[in-house]
Amino acid sequence: MNAYADLMAFQHDTEALSLVAERLGWDQETVMPRGATAQRAEEIGALESVLHARRTDPRIGDWLARAEAPDAAGARALDLIGRSYNRNARIPARLAAELARLTSLSQGIWAEARAADDVARFLPTLTEVLALKREAAQALADGGDPYDALLDDYEPGASAHGLAAIFDRMRPRLVALREAVLGAERQPAALNSVFPENTQLRIARICATAFGYDWNRGRLDLAVHPFSSGSVSDSRITTRVVETEPFNCLYSTIHEVGHSGYEQGIDPSYAFTPLGRGVSMGVHESQSRIYENQLGRSAPFTGWLYQRMTEAFGDLGVADAAAFHATVNRVTPGYIRTEADEVQYNLHIMLRFDLERALIAGKLEVSDLEEAWNARFLADFGVAVERPSQGVLQDVHWSVGLFGYFPTYALGNVYAGCLNQAMRAAVPGIDESLAKGDATPATHWLRDKLQRHGGLYKPAEVVEKACGFVPSEGPLLDYLEAKFKGIYGL
Amino acid sequence: MNAYADLMAFQHDTEALSLVAERLGWDQETVMPRGATAQRAEEIGALESVLHARRTDPRIGDWLARAEAPDAAGARALDLIGRSYNRNARIPARLAAELARLTSLSQGIWAEARAADDVARFLPTLTEVLALKREAAQALADGGDPYDALLDDYEPGASAHGLAAIFDRMRPRLVALREAVLGAERQPAALNSVFPENTQLRIARICATAFGYDWNRGRLDLAVHPFSSGSVSDSRITTRVVETEPFNCLYSTIHEVGHSGYEQGIDPSYAFTPLGRGVSMGVHESQSRIYENQLGRSAPFTGWLYQRMTEAFGDLGVADAAAFHATVNRVTPGYIRTEADEVQYNLHIMLRFDLERALIAGKLEVSDLEEAWNARFLADFGVAVERPSQGVLQDVHWSVGLFGYFPTYALGNVYAGCLNQAMRAAVPGIDESLAKGDATPATHWLRDKLQRHGGLYKPAEVVEKACGFVPSEGPLLDYLEAKFKGIYGL
Repeated sequence: MNAYADLMAFQHDTEALSLVAERLGWDQETVMPRGATAQRAEEIGALESVLHARRTDPRIGDWLARAEAPDAAGARALDLIGRSYNRNARIPARLAAELARLTSLSQGIWAEARAADDVARFLPTLTEVLALKREAAQALADGGDPYDALLDDYEPGASAHGLAAIFDRMRPRLVALREAVLGAERQPAALNSVFPENTQLRIARICATAFGYDWNRGRLDLAVHPFSSGSVSDSRITTRVVETEPFNCLYSTIHEVGHSGYEQGIDPSYAFTPLGRGVSMGVHESQSRIYENQLGRSAPFTGWLYQRMTEAFGDLGVADAAAFHATVNRVTPGYIRTEADEVQYNLHIMLRFDLERALIAGKLEVSDLEEAWNARFLADFGVAVERPSQGVLQDVHWSVGLFGYFPTYALGNVYAGCLNQAMRAAVPGIDESLAKGDATPATHWLRDKLQRHGGLYKPAEVVEKACGFVPSEGPLLDYLEAKFKGIYGL
Repeated sequence: MNAYADLMAFQHDTEALSLVAERLGWDQETVMPRGATAQRAEEIGALESVLHARRTDPRIGDWLARAEAPDAAGARALDLIGRSYNRNARIPARLAAELARLTSLSQGIWAEARAADDVARFLPTLTEVLALKREAAQALADGGDPYDALLDDYEPGASAHGLAAIFDRMRPRLVALREAVLGAERQPAALNSVFPENTQLRIARICATAFGYDWNRGRLDLAVHPFSSGSVSDSRITTRVVETEPFNCLYSTIHEVGHSGYEQGIDPSYAFTPLGRGVSMGVHESQSRIYENQLGRSAPFTGWLYQRMTEAFGDLGVADAAAFHATVNRVTPGYIRTEADEVQYNLHIMLRFDLERALIAGKLEVSDLEEAWNARFLADFGVAVERPSQGVLQDVHWSVGLFGYFPTYALGNVYAGCLNQAMRAAVPGIDESLAKGDATPATHWLRDKLQRHGGLYKPAEVVEKACGFVPSEGPLLDYLEAKFKGIYGL
């Protein structure tokens, strides 16, 4: 008789099953026997069928029509359930099935094309994926901008127009900073020895603890591509180890602690409701990036890390803590987004954002994509792409239909810049704590101002509430210019 | 339009979701963060709701009424689906819900009572559980024997009457063997040193490989209570390590390899059908027990293991391979079923079987259970139970409503005796291979004769087909008497 209670009880199990699906994904990427791949695909397929049926269950429409929320959190939950239900209802079943079928195959075709450095092998598939995503975008947009309709899946409330305005202001300053840094006389040294896996992992655990990661509700494992997985009480992280590149392991760990710590920080009373997870990809990325960069790659924290690594590995071949800070933040030319430093990362994102907007708008043909990529790369990075695996084939996203996802990475960096400025104004002694290997004062502020709210507020709203000002690119750019001009003596 | 195909497609996803539930259970017992217990209960609850709805979906009745099987395997699948559907249909929803609610709490109450050695604290709960299980048994029996109706969940086709006849023939010979062995002048030595965890696990892996365990479709982890989990392509085992008791780790591993190897051995074309799992608890236990005992505790295999353990740990404090074989098979007085040796194990089972039959039949009151347990224990084992945690409170089974489960352990031993006799008559050189640490000739025979069939034949039928004779207790008793009289010089 109580539509609200019935709907929330139904949603409770949907959220729980969605966590089960996430746990299966974790299992697959960390501990699953290699021979179980095909069986796991069947298991995930069965679970996703159940989830799809629940998310489009017509009873949701009835409940929503009659439900009365008891409070603001309840009203927000109804709003989020309604958004999801209406989005799913707009995609015809035929289109959803075609997309599921195609994207289950297209990732493998992309991987083969990338391994063979053969764009032509991938383009027919990308053409099909794009056609279906454009159709979906039209259906979702309901007369609005199709790209915004896709973006809305990852960053509700954001618009391509608004992001483009931010990015267009960022790009010239980042290109200029990149050129200045790479042309500087003073260049940091690279590390040049071997760092055994077990010791890297031991220090990675110490770093995670330094940021307040709760091991009672999480764990650290190895994965080919680091990720975080799960929520509130079971929020796990992964990292990878390359024995010549310890920062890969350590900063992947700190990055994932940012994501996982966000989930651990959400008010537990929101568990199994639509408010029980991080509110958007951009806000999630703001937490991982502020942990990784503004805090983890700061001079006070790297000063502490320098001591820990010297104790563990002996002489690192760098002169002192200041030289180590420069090494941690070393900027080098490179083609690959996932390996990019703080200065160049957002340029990678803007390239992809402009290209995918043009693809969705029909202003760029798939057949012209590689040429457009390479021209833009030369313009922004000053070097020519030599192989498509360095260029247009490097990312998995488009192969599985993730259009509208890339800009949330850069938006996360913008938000991290704003949060860092506000936090340092509000919390005294953050650097003093970081110098002792303790980032928990920062975690406490983020938890109180942002993380605990989960999905209660809209993405831009929760960041603005936390900062006390409307987010913009200014704080990030000011931070980057000051930091890297200092390191490079410019 | 094709009822058979529709039903099998529906069943495919039910089987897949059931494997997902099993994987969640594995996660919980091996890697899950401790703080995630409550969240996991919600996740498992949501998944079990989905599974219950699928297993009782009224469309199954319609499909079964119209389905035509294309072959014998299809006919068997329909038969198994029909059995499960009809059983579920016989349990009123109210009773199913009450049982689920009660047994979710009763295990904790039992654990507290056992920890406090306080029977009185457990009896009210056991009385409730028993009342609901008796009601379920009446509903399932449909006029037949209620205990048989419960037994049918674990060992389809078996009857209490038939099992009692077997057990009544076994009991005097086992009691006599126990007394003779414990009274013998020659008594094997116990191991008396510390065996480091990592080395135990390394040898456990070597043992698993020796039995043909496929690591590409499985893995070994630690758990408080060793178990195996999963099927065909993802069939995992666990063990435990006590540093003073290496046989605990090694023989738990070999036991679980028996279960897991059975699942790995099933014809992969049966995956995601009702034929895709081991056919019964008794047949499953026959595989774990023949690996653990008739093969793993044989003189040839322990001779090989003696060499491996001496290499790994140094002097074991036993004179030679023969003395080591005696130590592995050492019989000592003890109260606990899970720690019992081959001679005494089945006496533990018979005690529980007779008591739980009397409980279900209403011939024994819960209030008289402890006294009945202690009297029977004294009669069969010659020693008095001093504390209920050594006696009636030692096993979890009854607290969660598992009545009819215990006898399958002893039936598994009986089947293992038969299979061992038939295998050794059919396959030359098994002992020669075991002496080289290679049990795969035995695995190959078991796989060909029994494991690959999965659920295709009824439990007793597949054992009889493999053996070429009607299974009985004779081979097991002959084997035990010959082995232990040899070891003890009787």
